[in-house]
Amino acid sequence: MTDTMTRITLARRPKGLPTPGDFTLETSKVPTPGADEVLIAVTHLSLDPYMRGRMDDAKSYAPSVDIGGTMTGQGVGRIITSNADGFVPGDLVIGATGWASHAVLPTDGLRKLDEALPPSTALGVLGMPGMTAWTGLREYGRPKAGQTLVIGAATGPVGAMVGQLAKAAGMRTVAVAGGPEKCRLAVETFGFDAAVDHRAYDDAASLRRALAEAAPDGVDIYWENVGGKLLEAVVPLMNVGGRVPVCGMIAWYAGVDGDGTDRLPGLWRSVLVKRLSVNGFIIFDHWDKFPDFLSEVAPKVASGEITYLEDIAKGLENAPAAFIAMLQGGNTGKQIVEL
Amino acid sequence: MTDTMTRITLARRPKGLPTPGDFTLETSKVPTPGADEVLIAVTHLSLDPYMRGRMDDAKSYAPSVDIGGTMTGQGVGRIITSNADGFVPGDLVIGATGWASHAVLPTDGLRKLDEALPPSTALGVLGMPGMTAWTGLREYGRPKAGQTLVIGAATGPVGAMVGQLAKAAGMRTVAVAGGPEKCRLAVETFGFDAAVDHRAYDDAASLRRALAEAAPDGVDIYWENVGGKLLEAVVPLMNVGGRVPVCGMIAWYAGVDGDGTDRLPGLWRSVLVKRLSVNGFIIFDHWDKFPDFLSEVAPKVASGEITYLEDIAKGLENAPAAFIAMLQGGNTGKQIVEL
Repeated sequence: MTDTMTRITLARRPKGLPTPGDFTLETSKVPTPGADEVLIAVTHLSLDPYMRGRMDDAKSYAPSVDIGGTMTGQGVGRIITSNADGFVPGDLVIGATGWASHAVLPTDGLRKLDEALPPSTALGVLGMPGMTAWTGLREYGRPKAGQTLVIGAATGPVGAMVGQLAKAAGMRTVAVAGGPEKCRLAVETFGFDAAVDHRAYDDAASLRRALAEAAPDGVDIYWENVGGKLLEAVVPLMNVGGRVPVCGMIAWYAGVDGDGTDRLPGLWRSVLVKRLSVNGFIIFDHWDKFPDFLSEVAPKVASGEITYLEDIAKGLENAPAAFIAMLQGGNTGKQIVEL
Repeated sequence: MTDTMTRITLARRPKGLPTPGDFTLETSKVPTPGADEVLIAVTHLSLDPYMRGRMDDAKSYAPSVDIGGTMTGQGVGRIITSNADGFVPGDLVIGATGWASHAVLPTDGLRKLDEALPPSTALGVLGMPGMTAWTGLREYGRPKAGQTLVIGAATGPVGAMVGQLAKAAGMRTVAVAGGPEKCRLAVETFGFDAAVDHRAYDDAASLRRALAEAAPDGVDIYWENVGGKLLEAVVPLMNVGGRVPVCGMIAWYAGVDGDGTDRLPGLWRSVLVKRLSVNGFIIFDHWDKFPDFLSEVAPKVASGEITYLEDIAKGLENAPAAFIAMLQGGNTGKQIVEL
């Protein structure tokens, strides 16, 4: 067993797309595990788009990597030394090893792996990306047979799983991917019904036309992991009642700000980072509940427990002026015209 | 009984804020109801912000008013003539009368009103705006005691009801309204805990500072009926897990497009009109379900029912290059580094 290890640290915070100089390869002595810790020799490291966000010092859902700190990430490896109950040398485990050849970790974030499956699957199809796809589709996508799903980065580990699960649920699935080879893979390997090569379209409008052909009944679930041009292309194709699980926005990880005139990337980033639930609604869809509303609220209005205020204009001929004033906030309370 | 009636029709489609010339006051003969119809003499007409949208020919959730057509809207009135079972002259009813002194209507959209309450309440606190507040808060706001709600147009019929219902549910309620008088009303009449006068702040950043003082624990529900500067001010104050019922955007009804560089108004309008459900999520919030995921999906991966694809880079020293390539879509399948 070697007594030196390698790790990759953050040299500086990238602007936009990272460059090789943003990282440093460092060599150091293999550390010794303390009480209740294990030493792991990493065999497989996961690279995921979310790591780009960790390189910034912007507030996000997880701490930034410090300058000089080891890049964070999940790794699979075998235990070399164990000071922890329940773990012995040779155990195959997954944990937050970071970008490093060896890691000393406490065991509470560690999970032993089934040796029957290839170890790397714990980082992808049966790991965080697979779990992301499975959870987001069930909880926020709510697939319905006969409806249509569109997803970008469709041959990535999240996209491929979402597509297969949605297809199994009876949906029409449309992949968006970069280049003809990935489009072929999306259809042939992952069973998407159609694939659109976003590189073949310069702008959102032409990409939208291609998507409209691939999704002739409109889009019911747009799984957002891309942002940018694809988002702009898809939104006008969404059907009433559509669902948009916001899982990532790889197009906007590297520099979302531009000159600040487009406020969409900032809002979208907040939706993701703060796990916001944004629901458009039109009251006429809910009108069947009107009797419930009335039976609950009318007595409270009658008793004065709920107060209201009306702004009464007199005469139908004054309705336009009252309406124009209302649009500018000129009314106080509910605007009524008394005839 | 007079045999002439008045109505207000759409003279032309407004650009931005409507002007008086966009409307025409017309006089005509009172129509005669046909079979199963009634003739109503309108006493109260409702004016609502959504009507601005009906003046455009853009696709929305309801048909546009035609040029020359009567402006649509809800009215309350008394039946003069009835050819319909169950309705007799003198009945007080609410229905889609439009902006008109008289209306002939079928009875299927008509509702008889409780004479014990002022007739105009059926258009506001106990009508569509009240129902909107009650439904949207329950379904999409999901109030929680101790959390904070922010709402614009807070003295309007939707805002006032949302504020009172949220307060009754134990929330801190923050009103945003135009001018000191409306702010005073919000607190004294409707019981909001604090009120912020948006007219006192020129830009989103200064409005945000005022809101941050009024909502020191952040914002858990932002009820969207305004858009524009208020939306921009509030979003950075949202707490994790926040809810945004999108009910309207009065700031953007009149000309949302600008020069097109800000894509937020267009997206936001789609969220409303298409009743989209947009949910940001982070998988770590759901990690307790990992065993369920694994027990459902692992057998399907083992059997080949679910396919996966990996892109394996060799050697830790190549992780940065693989990561940079991945961010540009250079990988095919889940990116792994094998050490």
